[in-house]
Amino acid sequence: FESKTEKGISWTVVSPIVFTYKVTESRGLLDPSNDTLLLGHITDSQQLEDLKKSTEPIKRFVVIDQEVYKIYGAKLTEYLETNNVLYKILALPTTEENKSMEMVLNIVEEVNSFSLDRRTEPIIAIGGGVCLDIVGLAASLYRRRTPYIRVPTTLLAYIDASIGAKTGVNFANCKNKLGAYIPPVASFLDLSFIKTVPRRHISNGLAEMLKMALMKHRGLFEILEEQGHMLLDTKFQADNSAYGNNCLQTASQATYIAITTMLEELAPNLWEDDLNRLVDFGHLISPALEMKVLPSLLHGEAVNIDMSYMVYVSKESGYLTEEEKQRIINCMVELELPVWHEACTMELIQRSLQDRLKHSGGLVRMPLPMGLGQSIFNETSCEILHRAHEKWCDE
Amino acid sequence: FESKTEKGISWTVVSPIVFTYKVTESRGLLDPSNDTLLLGHITDSQQLEDLKKSTEPIKRFVVIDQEVYKIYGAKLTEYLETNNVLYKILALPTTEENKSMEMVLNIVEEVNSFSLDRRTEPIIAIGGGVCLDIVGLAASLYRRRTPYIRVPTTLLAYIDASIGAKTGVNFANCKNKLGAYIPPVASFLDLSFIKTVPRRHISNGLAEMLKMALMKHRGLFEILEEQGHMLLDTKFQADNSAYGNNCLQTASQATYIAITTMLEELAPNLWEDDLNRLVDFGHLISPALEMKVLPSLLHGEAVNIDMSYMVYVSKESGYLTEEEKQRIINCMVELELPVWHEACTMELIQRSLQDRLKHSGGLVRMPLPMGLGQSIFNETSCEILHRAHEKWCDE
Ligand SMILES: NC(=O)c1ccc[n+]([C@@H]2O[C@H](COP(=O)([O-])OP(=O)(O)OC[C@H]3O[C@@H](n4cnc5c(N)ncnc54)[C@H](O)[C@@H]3O)[C@@H](O)[C@H]2O)c1
Ligand SMILES: NC(=O)c1ccc[n+]([C@@H]2O[C@H](COP(=O)([O-])OP(=O)(O)OC[C@H]3O[C@@H](n4cnc5c(N)ncnc54)[C@H](O)[C@@H]3O)[C@@H](O)[C@H]2O)c1
Ligand SMILES: [Zn+2]
Ligand SMILES: [Zn+2]
Repeated sequence: FESKTEKGISWTVVSPIVFTYKVTESRGLLDPSNDTLLLGHITDSQQLEDLKKSTEPIKRFVVIDQEVYKIYGAKLTEYLETNNVLYKILALPTTEENKSMEMVLNIVEEVNSFSLDRRTEPIIAIGGGVCLDIVGLAASLYRRRTPYIRVPTTLLAYIDASIGAKTGVNFANCKNKLGAYIPPVASFLDLSFIKTVPRRHISNGLAEMLKMALMKHRGLFEILEEQGHMLLDTKFQADNSAYGNNCLQTASQATYIAITTMLEELAPNLWEDDLNRLVDFGHLISPALEMKVLPSLLHGEAVNIDMSYMVYVSKESGYLTEEEKQRIINCMVELELPVWHEACTMELIQRSLQDRLKHSGGLVRMPLPMGLGQSIFNETSCEILHRAHEKWCDE
Repeated sequence: FESKTEKGISWTVVSPIVFTYKVTESRGLLDPSNDTLLLGHITDSQQLEDLKKSTEPIKRFVVIDQEVYKIYGAKLTEYLETNNVLYKILALPTTEENKSMEMVLNIVEEVNSFSLDRRTEPIIAIGGGVCLDIVGLAASLYRRRTPYIRVPTTLLAYIDASIGAKTGVNFANCKNKLGAYIPPVASFLDLSFIKTVPRRHISNGLAEMLKMALMKHRGLFEILEEQGHMLLDTKFQADNSAYGNNCLQTASQATYIAITTMLEELAPNLWEDDLNRLVDFGHLISPALEMKVLPSLLHGEAVNIDMSYMVYVSKESGYLTEEEKQRIINCMVELELPVWHEACTMELIQRSLQDRLKHSGGLVRMPLPMGLGQSIFNETSCEILHRAHEKWCDE
C-alpha cells in the first residue's frame, strides 16, 4: 500500500468494484400485470416487498426510439398508467447518424428537470442498439452513474447490445469513439418486439448471431445454416403457418445459445482488459467501413462483410477447408447478408488492423474461425491478408 | 448464474473489476533527469526495462491549465524536449465557469487528431482541480477509457482531487452533474508547484485539509490550529526565513496526514456505493452554494461555510462543547476562510439535504464533527437544523 523511496512516498491503491446485473427473458413486458419492467431489477427481497406494499407511486424516466414509440407507445403509456407510475416518456430519433454526445446531453437535461432519486429510480431505455447505447452513456454520466435498464426491440440489440457493459456514441466520424463500460442494472428481453422489425434488420441481428456461431458453437451454426431462412421469414415469432409449430422453439433455442455464449465471453472481461477477444471477430475492420459508407450499411452488415473477408483469411491460413468456407459464405447469403463491399479496400483493412500489428515482423494478432464453430487466436502475416483480399474480391 | 422461472430465463452476471493506481510524491517533476512524469505509472518491471532500452520516442498528450502554462510552460517544454518526447501541449483556460462538456469535447477532439495508443500512452493533466476533473472525464470517455495521469498544481488538488476516482464537469448550473468514477493510472505530487499559488487558493486547499482533520485526525487539527497561518504564509515551501527551518517538515507532515486519511476513506469506497461517507462533510450544502454565487466563492470556501454551519449543528446536537466550537471557528478564521455567507439560507440548506431526509420523522443523516478529530454519523432533526442556523447567523 505505502512505500518510501529516495524520491518520496508512493501509495498504491487497489480498489475492487463488483458489477452485478441481470439479463432476464420475459414474455409480455408491456402487459400491465407483468411487473418486470418496474421491479425486475431489484435483487433485495426485503426492498422488493416494501415496494410492493408501498402506496407511493413509482417514478420512472423512459427514453424510447421514436419509431418504436409509434408502434408501442400507446401500450407503454397504458402500462405505466395502469401501474400508477409517475412517468416521463422521451421519444427520440435515435438513429446511427444522431448517435452523438448532443443527444446524450439532451437526455440528461430532461432527466435533470424530471428529477430522479439516483439510487432507486433507474432510467429505462427501450429501442434498438443505438437507443440503448446513447441512453446507457447518458445514465452513466449523470451524477457520475445513475442506474439504467435496457429493453431491446431489435434482434441485434436482443442478443448483443443488451448483454454487455458497453455504451457509446460516435464522435469525429469515428464509431463509438466516446463511451463507458457501465452495465445496466438489468436488461429485460421480450422476443415479441422483434415481430415488427423490418426484414433487413433481422438479417442484421443474425450477423451477430453468426459471429458467435463461428467463434464457438457449431450447433448454432447448424441452426443458422438450416433454419436461418425460416427465422428470417418468421421474425423469431410463432405465427407463421408455412413452417409448422417448431418456429418459436427454434427461435428461443438460437437466442438462448447466442446469449449464453456471449455472456461467457463478456462477463469475465467486462472492461475488455484482455485483448484476446473472440467477440471482436467481425469488429476489426467493420467500424471504419460502417462509418465510411454511413448510412448505407447497417452495423451487422458491416460486421458480416468483415467476417466474410476473415473467412478468406482463415482459408488462406489453412484453418478452413474450401468446403467449410463455401458453407459459411452460403449461410451468409441465405441470411441475406452482404458478403463483399467495394469500400472494403486493402488500404482500409490495413489502417484498421494497424493497432494489432506487431511492429516487428508485420504480423497481425486476431481471432479467426477454425472449422465450423471453433476459433483460433493467431498471428497472420500481411502477405496472407493481401492474398485473401485478392481472392475475396475475385469471387 | 442462470435461473429459470415460469416467466422465462434469467442470468445474473457478477463481474469484478479491480482498479489499481499510484499516488506518488516526487520532488522536481519537471527536472529533465526525473523520469517519473513519463514512466512513473508503469508497474510492470519488464515493461519498464524494455521502455528504458527502447530508442523509439515516447508519445504524450499533455493538457495544462493556461495560467499554470504561463509559469511552468517553458520548463515543461524543455523537459519534454530533453527527454525526446513526441508531444502535444494543450493549454486551456480551465476555470470553474468553463468546467463543461464543451471543453471535454475540445480535448477529445485534439486527442483524436494527435492519435495515441490507448493502452500505453496516458494523457497527462497538469493543473488545479478543475483541469484534473475535466481531463479525467475526457480520458474516461475517449475510446471508453484511456489512461490518464494527474499532476496537481494547487493545494486543493494536491490533497484532494488527485487522490480519488472522481472526474466531472458542471451541467445545467449544477456542480459536477456529469462525470465518471475512473481513477487515474497515477497521480504525481510535487509540492514545489504550490509556491506560485495565490494566497486565497492556499486557504482554499486548507479547507479540505481541515475537513479531514475534523473528521478523523486530531493531530492534523492541532497542526492547522497552531501552524496553519505559517503554512499559509510559506505556501508549503521551505524558503521563508521568518519561520525558521521546520516549515517544509510541517508542510510535508500535514499533506502526508491529509493524503493518508483521505486514501483510507476513499479506497474502500471508490464508487461511493456506501453512503456513509466522512468525506462528504462540508459537501452537502456547499455544491448548491458554490453554484449559486459562482464565481464569488471558491470550492474550499464554500466547503468551509458548510462546515462552519455544521459545527453549529454539532454544538446544538451536543457533540461539541462551546469551547471546541470556538476553537474550530477560530482556526477557520486563522486560515483566512469565510465562516458565513448570506446566500446560505435555511431554504438552500433544506433543499440540499432533501436527499438525506428520512421521509418519516424528518431526520437527516449526515456526518458531524464530535470533539476535535472525531466524527459521528447521526440523524439530525429539522428543529436542530433551524436552531443552529439562527445561532450561526447571529454570531
Ligand atoms: N453496446 C453494445 O455492446 C453493442 C453491441 C452491438 C451493437 N451495438 C450498437 O447498436 C447499434 C445497432 O443497433 P440496431 O441494429 O438495433 O439499430 P437501431 O437502434 O438503429 O435500430 C434499427 C432500426 O429499427 C427500428 N426499430 C427498432 N425496434 C423496432 C421494432 N421493434 N419494430 C420496428 N422497428 C424497430 C429503429 O427505429 C431503427 O430504425 C450500432 O450503433 C452498434 O454500434 C452496441
Ligand atoms: N475530483 C475530485 O475528487 C475533486 C476533489 C476536490 C475538488 N474537486 C474540484 O476541484 C475544483 C477546484 O480545484 P482548485 O481549487 O484547484 O481550482 P482551479 O483548478 O480553478 O485552480 C485555482 C486557480 O489557481 C490557478 N493555478 C493552478 N495552479 C497554479 C500554480 N501552481 N500557480 C499559480 N496559479 C495556479 C488556476 O489557474 C486557477 O486560477 C472544483 O471544481 C472541485 O469540484 C475535485
Ligand atoms: Zn457488433
Ligand atoms: Zn471538495
